[in-house]
Amino acid sequence: MADVTKITNGSLIGAEMVNGTNVYNMAGEKLGEVDDLMLDKKSGRVIYAVMSFGGFLGMGEKQHPLPWSALTYDEGKQGFVVNLDRQKLEQAPTLDDYENFEWTPDFGRTVDRYYGAPTYW
Amino acid sequence: MADVTKITNGSLIGAEMVNGTNVYNMAGEKLGEVDDLMLDKKSGRVIYAVMSFGGFLGMGEKQHPLPWSALTYDEGKQGFVVNLDRQKLEQAPTLDDYENFEWTPDFGRTVDRYYGAPTYW
Repeated sequence: MADVTKITNGSLIGAEMVNGTNVYNMAGEKLGEVDDLMLDKKSGRVIYAVMSFGGFLGMGEKQHPLPWSALTYDEGKQGFVVNLDRQKLEQAPTLDDYENFEWTPDFGRTVDRYYGAPTYW
Repeated sequence: MADVTKITNGSLIGAEMVNGTNVYNMAGEKLGEVDDLMLDKKSGRVIYAVMSFGGFLGMGEKQHPLPWSALTYDEGKQGFVVNLDRQKLEQAPTLDDYENFEWTPDFGRTVDRYYGAPTYW
């Protein structure tokens, strides 16, 4: 695989460039950063951003899927903003052991409900 | 950033997992592999896959944007199939010097026209 594409031009952005983007709450506190995007295979639409939160050097870190519709990109901050306080995030659904994570429609609905997002499932 | 998410469950797939996926033509020849995905910032929809083609250890390699709609995922091959022969690919629009590539609507329309895909622009 070649070097990562770093393009952002006008209305387009490379997925590799989205990864690592900071996520802030409405108070401007950094909650975490985007680690990956979950796509619908058929439509190619991003359904969730996977955000890593807390921990140190990858240890003790939690992975949270956030519905894409709950994220707003803030050009000034160069990051995503989500209406979510730290406390709510601490209780949010996580992707435990996610190399082997079994993502069920029930889990998806739980995530969507938690963030009050229109459900994909 | 934590380790890469490697989830694929049912209808969802991680963008990080799409990167590195092989791309084949209809004759089953490998043309290249996916390096990145270009998203529409607003809708979060994948518009192009950036494919690397040719070269050796990243040298002399070319980057081609392929309209997402021109790619079909083949479960058996575990890769994308595109109706495109090598010769046509060799003349296809490339992203030269793409760290600094200026992606214009005109370039986008040229790409879409080349592959006979409905245009995004």
